[in-house]
Amino acid sequence: MPNTDVISFSRGAPSLDIVDTEGLKAAAVAALDADPARVTGYGTSVGYPLLREWIAAKHNVAIENVLVTNGSMQADAFLFDELVAPGSPVIVERPTYDRTLLGLRNRRGELHPVTIQADGLNVDELEGILKGGVRPTLAHIIPNFQNPAGVTLSGDKRRRLLALADEYDFMIFEDDPYYDIRFRGEQLPTMLSQTDLSKGASGRVAYACSFSKTVCPGLRTGYLVGPADLIKKIATAATNTYIAPNMFAQATIYQFAASGALDKSIATVKGALEERVDQLSASLRAHLPGAEFVVPDGGYFLWVDLGEGVDCAKVAAAAADEGVQVVKGTDFVIEGGESCLRLAYSAVHADRIDEGVRRLAKAVEATRA
Amino acid sequence: MPNTDVISFSRGAPSLDIVDTEGLKAAAVAALDADPARVTGYGTSVGYPLLREWIAAKHNVAIENVLVTNGSMQADAFLFDELVAPGSPVIVERPTYDRTLLGLRNRRGELHPVTIQADGLNVDELEGILKGGVRPTLAHIIPNFQNPAGVTLSGDKRRRLLALADEYDFMIFEDDPYYDIRFRGEQLPTMLSQTDLSKGASGRVAYACSFSKTVCPGLRTGYLVGPADLIKKIATAATNTYIAPNMFAQATIYQFAASGALDKSIATVKGALEERVDQLSASLRAHLPGAEFVVPDGGYFLWVDLGEGVDCAKVAAAAADEGVQVVKGTDFVIEGGESCLRLAYSAVHADRIDEGVRRLAKAVEATRA
Repeated sequence: MPNTDVISFSRGAPSLDIVDTEGLKAAAVAALDADPARVTGYGTSVGYPLLREWIAAKHNVAIENVLVTNGSMQADAFLFDELVAPGSPVIVERPTYDRTLLGLRNRRGELHPVTIQADGLNVDELEGILKGGVRPTLAHIIPNFQNPAGVTLSGDKRRRLLALADEYDFMIFEDDPYYDIRFRGEQLPTMLSQTDLSKGASGRVAYACSFSKTVCPGLRTGYLVGPADLIKKIATAATNTYIAPNMFAQATIYQFAASGALDKSIATVKGALEERVDQLSASLRAHLPGAEFVVPDGGYFLWVDLGEGVDCAKVAAAAADEGVQVVKGTDFVIEGGESCLRLAYSAVHADRIDEGVRRLAKAVEATRA
Repeated sequence: MPNTDVISFSRGAPSLDIVDTEGLKAAAVAALDADPARVTGYGTSVGYPLLREWIAAKHNVAIENVLVTNGSMQADAFLFDELVAPGSPVIVERPTYDRTLLGLRNRRGELHPVTIQADGLNVDELEGILKGGVRPTLAHIIPNFQNPAGVTLSGDKRRRLLALADEYDFMIFEDDPYYDIRFRGEQLPTMLSQTDLSKGASGRVAYACSFSKTVCPGLRTGYLVGPADLIKKIATAATNTYIAPNMFAQATIYQFAASGALDKSIATVKGALEERVDQLSASLRAHLPGAEFVVPDGGYFLWVDLGEGVDCAKVAAAAADEGVQVVKGTDFVIEGGESCLRLAYSAVHADRIDEGVRRLAKAVEATRA
């Protein structure tokens, strides 16, 4: 009989205890009190003006470089619609976020996967592909605490990537929802901060981020930062799609940030996730001693390689029977990933993690038998 | 020197005094108190479950027939993406909502305009087009207080349209954001209510509505009702676009409805708009006695024909100089509309309307001189 007391390492979402619902209530009320006309009105497709300004200040760019969207996946979709035509060569990380792969495949982009290492994208491999004649329009990079690999692109590799983008004339899509969720180690400068967006074609970075990981997913607020001409084109597409994104949610986020609740929320999230990842690492070492993984310095995900001979689809199914949910590695690559799993620790309380890993170990054992 | 104290008849949006911001504050707090996990979580692309159920009950359909979106224009966009390919024949009203025309043109639909009369679409004209061999995939109809014409499709014409959809195998897109804003006369049954969505291909209506006109635009919440298989396809497209629409805004709308604030808000809006349209009609008769128009029984818009020899582009420009904004009729048709204007009375307080029409009359006079 399947275990009904399920522990889920499957979804990259926060547990409710690390969401500041009281702060959100106050922020929603403050938004309607402070700016009722703009909060209840249509607004325009670039987003709620005060949040747009706040984002521009955070990233030290002009407001013309910012578009606030209904979640950052909507920003991805607009960007792909603008830049990816059928047959467009696109660099993706291997492994990478499954929804990114799907979005690019649905637009019939020609995908060129580049291996992820412990310090992020294998830039030598990318350079080889470029020297081999591939001329990408876009390279999709999740620089911090990559989904699903959990690794972070080193500062040196960021600089090399920017140089390659300049040399081979492609845009870096810096997809960075986990930036603020670094719970140890030093923050690395974004590639966005190392490019000059005002320099036309040399503004080679489009940067996406989200409030889903720092506030909560249900307010569906993300944003895109990029060259002003690109943002303008996407703003037109956004107008034609939905007139404007959610003014009420965006104004609530703005008030949440302006009141200081956002900083407190980020501290809460980081504290909880650090505890969870430490527990997860310890439990994996204890119950699955052959497993290989890089301990993330932030973010939501740990990528574990269970070694040769393991079939992640069988493991995931057996784990579900044991009452623990995981996502199989094959979901995040075009080919391969059979021995890997993605474990999201964002939603599992520290005191439940060891039990989850015990169940997982039992499932792995069962598939080996 | 242009008049800086502008009166705007241009935008179909409510004035702030008819938006219940206190009710919205209470609803947002209630949403987070009652259901924090679902309000702050990702949710799924079909929308916030309790609002989806509420909508299904309102229209007497199954929840599988309902998808809640980020505004009803997003619902239109998904529906067009699903049904309109380049070259697809589509019936549109003449005149019709400018954003609808743009959305269909951007998808390279083959547009067949059918004239609007005082009781809505000229169904004889449509029948002639169908008999002539056109086989539309979709007929876009705004049945109540049409934008921009302000007229309502009669009950008899609704029945004839449904029969034609059956005979010629096309889908009616019943685009009905103004349904609840009838301030006089009897409510007519929707075409949705006269079709059986469970009957596969004979479920010939996709129905879109919105809370922008009954609550406010800033919460960007609309919805689509249609056959379950169509809704399922669109739900998949929505997942791939933004994972889920705004749970926080949708839960706030749900609480606003459940508390009774929605019914009060609708009564407020109807009272104010009836007063505004009565004043607008009286002022037009007084200051532009040659103008022809149908007095709307609801909604936001009055369509006025200023008669031969008038150039609406010149009038709109001259009006702007006089301090009154209007939208020229040519924006709402593929050809024609030169002598017409759309006047939105939703945002202009009754005591400002006469002054607005005086300015408009002066502008008309100036372009005739």
